[in-house]
Parts: sequence; structure tokens; C-alpha cells
Amino acid sequence: MVVTDNPQTPQEKVPFDLPAYLQQRQSQIEAALDRAIPIAYPEKIYEAMRYSLLAGGKRLRPILCLATCELAGGTTEMAIPTACALEMIHTMSLIHDDLPAMDNDDYRRGMLTNHKVYGEDIAILAGDGLLAYAFEYVAAKTKNVPAQRVLQVISRLGRAVGAAGLVGGQVVDLESEGKADVSIDTLNFIHNHKTAALLEACVACGAILAGAPEADLQRLTRYAQNIGLAFQIVDDILDITATQEELGKTAGKDLQAQKATYPSIWGLEESQRQARQLVQAAIAELDSFGEKALPLQAIAEFITSRTH
Amino acid sequence: MVVTDNPQTPQEKVPFDLPAYLQQRQSQIEAALDRAIPIAYPEKIYEAMRYSLLAGGKRLRPILCLATCELAGGTTEMAIPTACALEMIHTMSLIHDDLPAMDNDDYRRGMLTNHKVYGEDIAILAGDGLLAYAFEYVAAKTKNVPAQRVLQVISRLGRAVGAAGLVGGQVVDLESEGKADVSIDTLNFIHNHKTAALLEACVACGAILAGAPEADLQRLTRYAQNIGLAFQIVDDILDITATQEELGKTAGKDLQAQKATYPSIWGLEESQRQARQLVQAAIAELDSFGEKALPLQAIAEFITSRTH
Repeated sequence: MVVTDNPQTPQEKVPFDLPAYLQQRQSQIEAALDRAIPIAYPEKIYEAMRYSLLAGGKRLRPILCLATCELAGGTTEMAIPTACALEMIHTMSLIHDDLPAMDNDDYRRGMLTNHKVYGEDIAILAGDGLLAYAFEYVAAKTKNVPAQRVLQVISRLGRAVGAAGLVGGQVVDLESEGKADVSIDTLNFIHNHKTAALLEACVACGAILAGAPEADLQRLTRYAQNIGLAFQIVDDILDITATQEELGKTAGKDLQAQKATYPSIWGLEESQRQARQLVQAAIAELDSFGEKALPLQAIAEFITSRTH
Repeated sequence: MVVTDNPQTPQEKVPFDLPAYLQQRQSQIEAALDRAIPIAYPEKIYEAMRYSLLAGGKRLRPILCLATCELAGGTTEMAIPTACALEMIHTMSLIHDDLPAMDNDDYRRGMLTNHKVYGEDIAILAGDGLLAYAFEYVAAKTKNVPAQRVLQVISRLGRAVGAAGLVGGQVVDLESEGKADVSIDTLNFIHNHKTAALLEACVACGAILAGAPEADLQRLTRYAQNIGLAFQIVDDILDITATQEELGKTAGKDLQAQKATYPSIWGLEESQRQARQLVQAAIAELDSFGEKALPLQAIAEFITSRTH
């Protein structure tokens, strides 16, 4: 008789093919984003919005939203407008962050930044247009979801992008630039707001659309907060260890800008350890969901293993 | 108004004190805006948002929203979050339009523009923060209105500010600058999108919140489109005839910038005639509402008679 220490349940044996899952979802989201913004007069602004929105990227945010909605018993159809809106909001924040008055970046995802192609004026307006459209899109296009839930989603999205979210994080980031004595609290504030807030909104909105009970919403929110911070730590690590080609954006930029990062405070090794720990804590929040949580679990693991 | 031929009904004789009405509403809105955005960490962004949001102004947009909601049988309480959101959106568009990459204005409402006080980076983010907060505020704070109506309002707000509204109008405005041969169609497009679209949203949202029937919504929308264009024609006229002190912003700026305006195409007199005609057409749309429409009627008349 063969005795194993800790026999796996059949549930745990189900192989989960993350690359195939991500690719399928990515195609679905690309197609939805492409349909979401058709070109009209004045063409230039629609082209500028589409240029950055359809510039590739992992589509991690919309994928998280769809995956959580399904985990909580909803359908991808219920969540696709919100998933698209999340990518519009994320894209808007990238366009505005790249502006000369902000981080002054020339490249993003291996392409010229929006203002390098369309000019600063159009880039500002393309961001504004994407942000406004994100809310319109959720309000007008969400189907088969009670209106009260859609309002909750809009409220969450607004909070995630405004002064209590992305915008607030970017303000503290700008204030901290070039400062040698940025504390770990300040760094955490920046990334909890610049990165984790929107990732949290992705997961929370997916759960809300599906009508998840409050306890599940809380668990999933903690999952998202943990992967959000892990994601940023890994980003900081990659800025040091990856090449420009791998990143598709200027590498070593944080060092050049004397920007406080997790590796600059903790060192590389400790940063890696912290990221792994956060991912483990994130996955622990998924325990009660069983097999349904496989996509979210695999996405959490993917975050620390990614190389770009 | 000539009273001899067509004696007024008692309804029409009710004296309407517009200045008192505007002042009462203005105070109500100022107080609501002040409460809407308390200062938190990072203080700078909240201060920047408040600096422009609380910089005075006629508060015409929120007043139109409240007045239409009441006209259609709703209460001001139902409409106050949307009214505040409309002013946040309007303020955001002013902050971004004033940026060096856009119209490069140093003064607005007699005060330094946002970026002259807080810097370009914070001004861009203050606009983003106000825009995001506008949607959050409507979604989270609207009370005693069916959720489906609130979603309709959010959808309208998004359309009014995005590429199909304010943003699209500003793009064509920027493209037309310095061009000698701007057609009246292009000029109408600019102002239908830069000015009329948001005024239309104010009125439409007020009506939707109150649950106005479709026919009334159509009438009120046409009222708003007419006063929107009249408003812009008068703005163009005032840029020529008013002093800087009266305007609170740089006077004669359109001429200096060789900007196409209604007076530059039609001349001053014809522009004044067109504005009056639009206001008459607007007021005609209010006929079926009787006495309840007195505030909207007086506001329409006020638009052509204002001197700043």
C-alpha cells in the first residue's frame, strides 16, 4: 500500500493552463475594447484614445475583473463593460503620467507615448475622454445586472481613480521624487494608491456585479490588496534586473531619477521575499472558494514569476 | 413683453425675482460643493481641486439642473449631487483648457489659473480628480431616485464630457486656432460640444432625475441646446465689448489669438440678433410648462442680458 503524507484531493489535481486562459481572455478583451471606441469626427481624438488603449499590455486589470465575476457566480457578459472601463481608466492614468509635466516618458509598452505622437494637448484630452467614457460605458452598457450594483461599481471606480486612489498616489509620487529619505510608509502609500487601488477595484467590481456576499467581497478585496503591492514590488525589481527590450519602456529609470523603490529601501533579495509573502497571503484568502479560484490563484503566482 | 394685444393670464403675472432666486441657489450650491470635497492627505491635491471648484462663478450649470428637476416635479435634494457633479465637470474642463499645452491662460474668474498656483502636474491631476469624483459623487450620494435613472444620468454626464462632448469640442477648437477660414458649421460644432453639450446635460439630468416623460425631456433638451449656443455667442460678444475687470479673465483674447468667433463671422449686430432669437426659441419650448417654467425662462433671458 502506498501511503502519501498528504494526498491531494481531485480538486487540487485539476491542471490549470494559465497561459491559455490569459490568451483567451486577452483576445476577448482586445475585441471588446476595439468595438467600444469606434472612430468618429473629430477623428484625431478617437485615434489618440485608441492608440494607447489598443497598444497591447497584459490586460491584467480587465482579466481580474472577469475572473472574479465568474468566481462569484456571475458571467463574463455581466462584467465586460466594467472590464473595458478598467482598462480605459488604467490607460488614461498612463497617458497622463507620461506627460512632460509629470514623469516625462517617451516610451511605453515599446511604443512612443501618446503625447510624443499626438502632442500634449491631445494627450491630455485623450486621457479625459477615456476617463469620461469609462463611466459612460459602464452605466450605458452593463446588462443583466441590477442597477443598484452598477451604481456601486461606478462609485468604486471613481474612488479608485480620484484623489483617494490613483490621483492621490501620483501626487505623493511626484512630491517624493528626488528625495533621499522617502519612508517605507510613504512608498506604501504611493503604491497602495497608484497600483493596488485600481487592482482592488477590478476584483471588487467583478464581485459586486456578480452579487457576492459581503464576506466574500472582503476576502477578495484583501487578495487584491496583496497582489497589488506584490505587483509593484516586482515592477521595481524588474526596473533593475530587466532590459529595456523586455520591459518595452526605459529601464533603470527609477535609479536615474533617484526614485525611492522597494529594492532601494529593502535591497533586491528582501524585496523578492516580501513579494512572495504577499502572493502567499493573497492566495490564502482564496481558500474558501476551492477550484473556482484557480484563475485568481494562478494570476497571483504569475505576478511574482513574470519577467516583464 | 407687450401686454396690450394678448392679455397675460394670472399665471404669467406672478413676479419672478431672478436675482434672489439665483443668489439663493448659488449659496445652496456653494455650501454643497464645500462639503463635497473635504481636505485629506495628500492635502495639495484637495486644495488644488477646491481652489478652482470654489472660485466663484455663476453656478449656472448646477442651477439649471436643480431648476429643471423641480420643474419636472422632483426636489432639489434629488438633484443636488448631480448639480455638484456638473460643476466639478465644468471646473475640470476649465482647469485643463487653461493649461499651457492648451489655451495657456493665466487668469480665470479674476484669479490665477490652477496651474499658475499649483503647477502643471497638479493641475492635470486636479482635473482628473474632479472628473472621477463627479461620477463617484452622483453614484454614491444620490438619494430617493430609482437606480436606473441615476445610471441614465451618469451615462449622459459621461457623454457630455467625453469625445462626443466637451473633449471633442476642444479638439476642433484647438485645430481651428489661427485659421482664417473657419466655417460657421465648424464654429457651431465647437460650441455645441464645448458649451451646449454640458448645459444640455444639466437640463436633461434634472429632468431624468425627476422622472420626466420623454416628450418633456425632448422639449427641455431643445431649450438647453438653444440657450447653450446663445450663451456662447454672448461670450464671444463680451470678449470684444467687456473689460478685463468685468470678465475676470483676459479680455480681447479671441481677437489676439485670431480665433474665429460669431462676431468675427457675423459681425456684432447680427450676433446679438441671433442670440436673442435663440433665447426666444428656447423660451417657446417652455410654453407647455406654465408658471413652473418661470426660473428657466428668466435664466434664458438673463443669458442675453448679462454683461460678464
